[in-house]
Amino acid sequence: MNILITAGGTSEKIDTVRSITNHSTGRLGKEIGELFLAQGHRVTYITTPQAVQPTKESNLTIIEIDSTKELETTLLEQFDHQKFDGIIHSMAVSDFTTETTLSEDLFIEKLAAKLTADGHLPDATDLRETLYRSLDEIGKTIQQEKKIPSGTDRLLLFLKKNPKIIAMLRKQQPHAVLVGFKLLVGVSTEELIRVGQSILIKNNCDLVLANDLEEIQGSHHKGILIDALGQTETAQTKKEIAQLIVKKVEEKWRNQ
Amino acid sequence: MNILITAGGTSEKIDTVRSITNHSTGRLGKEIGELFLAQGHRVTYITTPQAVQPTKESNLTIIEIDSTKELETTLLEQFDHQKFDGIIHSMAVSDFTTETTLSEDLFIEKLAAKLTADGHLPDATDLRETLYRSLDEIGKTIQQEKKIPSGTDRLLLFLKKNPKIIAMLRKQQPHAVLVGFKLLVGVSTEELIRVGQSILIKNNCDLVLANDLEEIQGSHHKGILIDALGQTETAQTKKEIAQLIVKKVEEKWRNQ
Repeated sequence: MNILITAGGTSEKIDTVRSITNHSTGRLGKEIGELFLAQGHRVTYITTPQAVQPTKESNLTIIEIDSTKELETTLLEQFDHQKFDGIIHSMAVSDFTTETTLSEDLFIEKLAAKLTADGHLPDATDLRETLYRSLDEIGKTIQQEKKIPSGTDRLLLFLKKNPKIIAMLRKQQPHAVLVGFKLLVGVSTEELIRVGQSILIKNNCDLVLANDLEEIQGSHHKGILIDALGQTETAQTKKEIAQLIVKKVEEKWRNQ
Repeated sequence: MNILITAGGTSEKIDTVRSITNHSTGRLGKEIGELFLAQGHRVTYITTPQAVQPTKESNLTIIEIDSTKELETTLLEQFDHQKFDGIIHSMAVSDFTTETTLSEDLFIEKLAAKLTADGHLPDATDLRETLYRSLDEIGKTIQQEKKIPSGTDRLLLFLKKNPKIIAMLRKQQPHAVLVGFKLLVGVSTEELIRVGQSILIKNNCDLVLANDLEEIQGSHHKGILIDALGQTETAQTKKEIAQLIVKKVEEKWRNQ
């Protein structure tokens, strides 16, 4: 099979020296990649600079990206000249990217000017609408400085929605076996399965691996693999998760 | 000499999986640490998990921290039982830490409520004051969620000032030879020296290493070491910067 794996975590730049990072060691992606390779499959592996990588070999192509936008561009380039049989989307992708950063002082100056643009304040009934429009204009028009000014007590960071990568994967590669990932924090097993299923349905995945940050520690990594029939299998380590995913993806591919 | 080095870059948590990171490879700190050790000095080395570290040896103690607040606590603990002769503060410390994160919808709801708290909008003359007070209250009172909600188009992140570590270093260890660092982006040599000098005076440093991100690439790393008399020496690599700093710190210590 021709396999695509995304792993690691994206970073969204705030300025030239700071960014918002989604933490991910990439160790689970590495396990999955190495197991697909060991089974004789070809792997295109898209990851981020901080994450660990599978051991290099001839059937493996590694591509590094930083931001969600770069991930999107890189994936579209790949889809231009490759068709994948299986896609394992384990990268921790930022839902939001930075739009603008401004000091409290500048924000209040801009907001006050917008609220009183008509020579007076809006009616209480028009207030919310004016606030939405003002925030939108401030978010879109204020140019980001090269480095954030340090002489202010409070900064406001505007973040805007990133493109949804998982939806794009299904749209671009309709016949691939698609595995989505969902990481939650401190929820029950029932909730984990419920959210995993909803992600599977919403994004038209074949499988979703649901896991909880509080169940990942050292070699222990609990993961629940959910399929489109709602059936679940549970693994307790990264190796077991990799084995489950490779087995299920191969099965689904054979049965298509 | 008993030397303290800070290196790497701090991270400020947004939620359990995301943080704002100040990028720093720690490679310059490693060079400086290893050169002090090679000269027979004792080194306490405070760094961050992503940064490279000096090669372990008996005269070296390494301590890892994440956030600026943790750095402050760790330094104060060290100062309780150690007196340092030289302090090299090369860590990229975040000027701001996360205060709260909220969706545009929740922000506008809260702000509209505060603006109309008296049953009507404030006068245009009171508007700014009301906006400052409202932002302050929203920043301080809204509890952060475990993971940011993804179902909103825009997020607002409130950041507040971190404690100034360099000022605390001088206050706590008045007799140490103190070396500050200043990283700028895309400025002239004159501007670099001007800003470096102002940092030196403001924080009562003995030396400041001023460098420009655009002059750091591969083995090339231009650094200008400025002393309290305004004299400067320029290095072109990390090794040369380390040599300059070790030489100057030893000299200043001998001449005290």
